[in-house]
Amino acid sequence: MQPLQFPPRLLMGPGPINCYPSVLQAMSTQLVGQYDPTMTGYMNEVMALYRQVFNTQNEQTFLIDGTSRAGIEASLVSVLEPGDKVLVPIFGRFGHLLTEIAERADAEVHTIEVPWGEVFDPQQIEEAIKRVQPKVLAIVQGDTSTTMLQPLNDIGGICRAHDVLLYTDATASIGGNPFDMDAWQIDAVSVGLQKCLGGPSGSAPVSYNDRFVAAVRKRHHVEAGIRDAHHTESMGSRIRSNYFDLGMIMDYWGEERLNHHTEAATMLFGSRQCAVELLREGQDAVIARHQLAGNAMLQGIQAMGLQPYGDLSNKMSNVVGVHIPDNVDGEKVRHDMLNIFNIEIGTSFGPLKGKVWRIGTMGYNARQDAVLHTLQSLETVLRGQGFALPNGEGVDTALAVYSSAKDSAAQKASL
Amino acid sequence: MQPLQFPPRLLMGPGPINCYPSVLQAMSTQLVGQYDPTMTGYMNEVMALYRQVFNTQNEQTFLIDGTSRAGIEASLVSVLEPGDKVLVPIFGRFGHLLTEIAERADAEVHTIEVPWGEVFDPQQIEEAIKRVQPKVLAIVQGDTSTTMLQPLNDIGGICRAHDVLLYTDATASIGGNPFDMDAWQIDAVSVGLQKCLGGPSGSAPVSYNDRFVAAVRKRHHVEAGIRDAHHTESMGSRIRSNYFDLGMIMDYWGEERLNHHTEAATMLFGSRQCAVELLREGQDAVIARHQLAGNAMLQGIQAMGLQPYGDLSNKMSNVVGVHIPDNVDGEKVRHDMLNIFNIEIGTSFGPLKGKVWRIGTMGYNARQDAVLHTLQSLETVLRGQGFALPNGEGVDTALAVYSSAKDSAAQKASL
Repeated sequence: MQPLQFPPRLLMGPGPINCYPSVLQAMSTQLVGQYDPTMTGYMNEVMALYRQVFNTQNEQTFLIDGTSRAGIEASLVSVLEPGDKVLVPIFGRFGHLLTEIAERADAEVHTIEVPWGEVFDPQQIEEAIKRVQPKVLAIVQGDTSTTMLQPLNDIGGICRAHDVLLYTDATASIGGNPFDMDAWQIDAVSVGLQKCLGGPSGSAPVSYNDRFVAAVRKRHHVEAGIRDAHHTESMGSRIRSNYFDLGMIMDYWGEERLNHHTEAATMLFGSRQCAVELLREGQDAVIARHQLAGNAMLQGIQAMGLQPYGDLSNKMSNVVGVHIPDNVDGEKVRHDMLNIFNIEIGTSFGPLKGKVWRIGTMGYNARQDAVLHTLQSLETVLRGQGFALPNGEGVDTALAVYSSAKDSAAQKASL
Repeated sequence: MQPLQFPPRLLMGPGPINCYPSVLQAMSTQLVGQYDPTMTGYMNEVMALYRQVFNTQNEQTFLIDGTSRAGIEASLVSVLEPGDKVLVPIFGRFGHLLTEIAERADAEVHTIEVPWGEVFDPQQIEEAIKRVQPKVLAIVQGDTSTTMLQPLNDIGGICRAHDVLLYTDATASIGGNPFDMDAWQIDAVSVGLQKCLGGPSGSAPVSYNDRFVAAVRKRHHVEAGIRDAHHTESMGSRIRSNYFDLGMIMDYWGEERLNHHTEAATMLFGSRQCAVELLREGQDAVIARHQLAGNAMLQGIQAMGLQPYGDLSNKMSNVVGVHIPDNVDGEKVRHDMLNIFNIEIGTSFGPLKGKVWRIGTMGYNARQDAVLHTLQSLETVLRGQGFALPNGEGVDTALAVYSSAKDSAAQKASL
């Protein structure tokens, strides 16, 4: 029963990644009561902070107490009644996850797919919408399984034109890539902290606009144990989950403060600090930092003679897939990276399992030193396995990417 | 965007309460990857620690990533298929919660009730089991809404005799009252950290025995995105929640380590430290400390001329209900306790709302100084409202309870 002892890992996989130190510090804060005015004050502040993170005016912006898939399930199970049609464009593992969650809600699930490593054209999605006429379109923005980023800016307008609700899971992309909820006309979003936001898994920020809330509120319900005379018992088909009943969770976060769960205060403190880190540095600056780190990593990888995976014009800034070269034992490389250099890089799922590593540059770790250490160590490990590669090309190329960014920033400043 | 700033509250309500300092410290630990051997090592250690907390040999002992009601919902939704019969004996708010969660799973829910402030005789439960013949009996051990502790030691045998699965929610009672899972033949349990375990809300330790696991495993399913050739697609009626699919969660915590969610590492670190605190001090010692603090609080309250609520012979050790005296503004008392003395005491739900305060002595706060400050402050606040009460009787009585406990411990030690 010793205190926790971990090696000082540098987490350069597809997430979770190392937390910002300030986030860790926030999570050692002593509690107050759940209805303490200082606590509800911070709940309101968290709502305001995540409105900024999502670039939305949505009143209903709050946290689901669970990992990022808790946010997905709360969104889908609260809006989808049994038999409702939902369309899921799948371009990786997390599309399958949306499908499976919707199926379990007994929705009528329709899917379209592109091969892993690609994304959808808006026309493909619009055609499917016309054919299926779904109540909801559910799509991920960034699918870490393939590193792909689905452009969403045109999808919201298409959905609005066909009276479809648009839900997106932006867990893998938020913070490292643009996300403009209101401008893009996205009705519902859920995310997690463990990627570019630089926090631990376990809290799922969400936001819902009035169209989405109206669909959920049709199924309003107040729990028996706390129902007062002025509450109506129930209306609409009851949401199948108590824990994920967004109507009840909104009543808890809202002015009535109707008891539902006991807010996971420590995770709220962490979530708050993730938003503070993002907004203090500035969203554009953080996105640029991710683009720079991702670009340095990508070019370094290519300079080493390794092949990146997938359609690079639609890659998330914060993660790159790397084809494991022939005659290289991919798992032994990961093992050596971890055990010799304390650096974690990722494996893959499904069709890419054993074929592709995934290397992330996210949140706190979207840093020059993290990129350079990773490239150097990968070179050393690959050399140890007899893989021929040019000496120092990876790290030098990444250094050059950083230098040239510095130069062009200096140039811009001097103009 | 300042760092979090809270007043130093002493949380003497029905939970959440102040965390053990070591728990807060554990939650500022930097992360490692979710499949890092040091992480999976701690996951295994957490399973072993909570086996001790629950007094069980159950292999399937782990955490659900969510608040305590996430543990309830995972347990019920994974075992109850639509149409399955479940019997819920209700003796407070959380009985209603079990009912509502089971109803949403489309189980056929049967309830029996006793008035708030009382508990069930085993015969009442056995008679209902004979009549209903349920698949599952779901009952809370301690219902904070009423402060009552349902004796469970005879219920397991009754359930076994009638081939019924016994699930219990022990969130409010665990750590402060005995809980002997295997000896009492309890098939499934879920708890939270935010009461006597001295942690924050947001992680739900659970344990399931082989009988319960067999019922869940009938509904085995592997997610599409990660399914390999050696996985069968599905069998039995699919569990209606992905997030709460215990089969999948067991596959994640088990040797196969099949990806489900990304473990909420910070909450796991906190959960681990809660168990370490309990086991290092010793379960019997911690229970005795709660009994002593609860007894000192109860006797102090009575000495002040206040009336405790409910059947005192079946009260949890760690919380007492107190009738709000006539002509006293209960909410103003709570307000003054909080704002003048930084001490939180609880209000009540449902039929007790506005009629009863709830005062807890839990976890880190099951301490002499916490009890004494609370009694003194309550006296001062009540005096300020013109409530006549004997000077210093509450605190002196509590001091005497502690002295006499010290004397009898010394006497025991000298024998």
